[in-house]
Amino acid sequence: MQDHPTGNFRERIEASFAHQGAMTLIGAELTRIQQGIVEIELPYNVALTQQHGFLHAGVIAAALDSACTYAAYTMIDADVSILTIEFKVNLMSPGKGDRFLFRGEITKPGSNIIVADGRAYAIGDGPAKLIASMTGTKMAIRGREGISG
Amino acid sequence: MQDHPTGNFRERIEASFAHQGAMTLIGAELTRIQQGIVEIELPYNVALTQQHGFLHAGVIAAALDSACTYAAYTMIDADVSILTIEFKVNLMSPGKGDRFLFRGEITKPGSNIIVADGRAYAIGDGPAKLIASMTGTKMAIRGREGISG
Amino acid sequence: MQDHPTGNFRERIEASFAHQGAMTLIGAELTRIQQGIVEIELPYNVALTQQHGFLHAGVIAAALDSACTYAAYTMIDADVSILTIEFKVNLMSPGKGDRFLFRGEITKPGSNIIVADGRAYAIGDGPAKLIASMTGTKMAIRGREGISG
Amino acid sequence: MQDHPTGNFRERIEASFAHQGAMTLIGAELTRIQQGIVEIELPYNVALTQQHGFLHAGVIAAALDSACTYAAYTMIDADVSILTIEFKVNLMSPGKGDRFLFRGEITKPGSNIIVADGRAYAIGDGPAKLIASMTGTKMAIRGREGISG
Repeated sequence: MQDHPTGNFRERIEASFAHQGAMTLIGAELTRIQQGIVEIELPYNVALTQQHGFLHAGVIAAALDSACTYAAYTMIDADVSILTIEFKVNLMSPGKGDRFLFRGEITKPGSNIIVADGRAYAIGDGPAKLIASMTGTKMAIRGREGISG
Repeated sequence: MQDHPTGNFRERIEASFAHQGAMTLIGAELTRIQQGIVEIELPYNVALTQQHGFLHAGVIAAALDSACTYAAYTMIDADVSILTIEFKVNLMSPGKGDRFLFRGEITKPGSNIIVADGRAYAIGDGPAKLIASMTGTKMAIRGREGISG
Repeated sequence: MQDHPTGNFRERIEASFAHQGAMTLIGAELTRIQQGIVEIELPYNVALTQQHGFLHAGVIAAALDSACTYAAYTMIDADVSILTIEFKVNLMSPGKGDRFLFRGEITKPGSNIIVADGRAYAIGDGPAKLIASMTGTKMAIRGREGISG
Repeated sequence: MQDHPTGNFRERIEASFAHQGAMTLIGAELTRIQQGIVEIELPYNVALTQQHGFLHAGVIAAALDSACTYAAYTMIDADVSILTIEFKVNLMSPGKGDRFLFRGEITKPGSNIIVADGRAYAIGDGPAKLIASMTGTKMAIRGREGISG
């Protein structure tokens, strides 16, 4: 993996995360930031469920997309922003548990296109259970009006 | 497309939608139900945004996934339930507008695997703008404990 | 859809297609080129099968990807090239038939990122049968060494 | 990961691979079979290229899909067959090299739905280079006419 002297990405990611209304709405917290990896955690909440009482696939997608996007922020210069072009989510087990952990990790850095993979885990009694995966494609954006942070 | 005498799918979908905490949380409404097509609408709300103030990709995914899932409910018998196996979302334009429309449509019905395609539109001044698409794969579930409605 | 004065895209696409070893290998022909839509056809051949004797998913992906890529060529200037960033394929029915038709169509044009959707059909006795769909993301490339045509 | 006493999966996979016309056509060889992981290798051949002389995305998809499918065969009983429902491929670097290695690995086993992830590498001078990834969803098929092996 290339060397990325991306400076103070921690502060930048924390500030950006705080601006995400959707992350506040679902009760998500940033719990790990390091070069190439970001984790987000979320307690179970009935307000976040689908019709069977499991965590809604859209909530899983939201948290995985944010984790993958912020993992991309650890690989770019401070004046660059990231937009998600597309993602795919596989739902592997029902989203039931006390808490959920979402990890985003950079698979392929790049100056233009960045690929990240995410994994979502349910945490309760016993070992963490893999509930979903994501592959997402990100684009680095430079100098586009209204896209910063 | 096969003939699907699925009876009272409207009532069933409305009851199921009302059980989705996540749909209530984001302020989504069911606005169209017909054989093979379901639409959901959502007003813009800053609580639903990502860091640039656009509708969060996860909210788009949540609403598209629900629209696609309920489109699948129009194709199945009343004692069958639907689970999403996976979906892919392409984000084509920023999620900005007064309201958003999410349409799910069945591309391939089936007794076991159902494929649905979704489109998300931003509505404001001027014509509706395509902001995202989804392709999702659904599985019909029969008689699994805890999965009904 | 934007106006794209892309001139002689037909000649350009035909010349590029002729350079695709893989399209020759599988016996594919360009059968339709118009603004935003390209079609490719292929006769059934046992050399193109998977273990059950159906058309191999990779052959379906190859032909759909080429159709989608050339549909993108109809939307760009003559000095721009196209690379596929990613695609998703849903396999909906077994690939059996006398011939196969692959249609690529532009869903979202753009100067940088282009989204195309493809559909694959099996043709034999009776009506054409939808066997697969693709959504692909393309990037327009300008002035990168070794990438032209 | 569950215990899967799947017996002689090696013989079964080798016999099935030999029936894949498409794998013969592209010159692919099975080079590794173990519980949960299958690898396929391929020498570069101009007959497998797209218009820029790189390995065609469809060839990459074909080999990754076969590797992922046979990884699934290591997890099932001998009377079960596997069909690919869908896959997504991200193309991360141009497919240029002397040889290519395709690894399929099971991410989520299951009696009905199996999720596999694949990685494709170009091999030449210097270290192997990641050129593509796949996530694929497989379905276990029991007793359907015409689907065996």
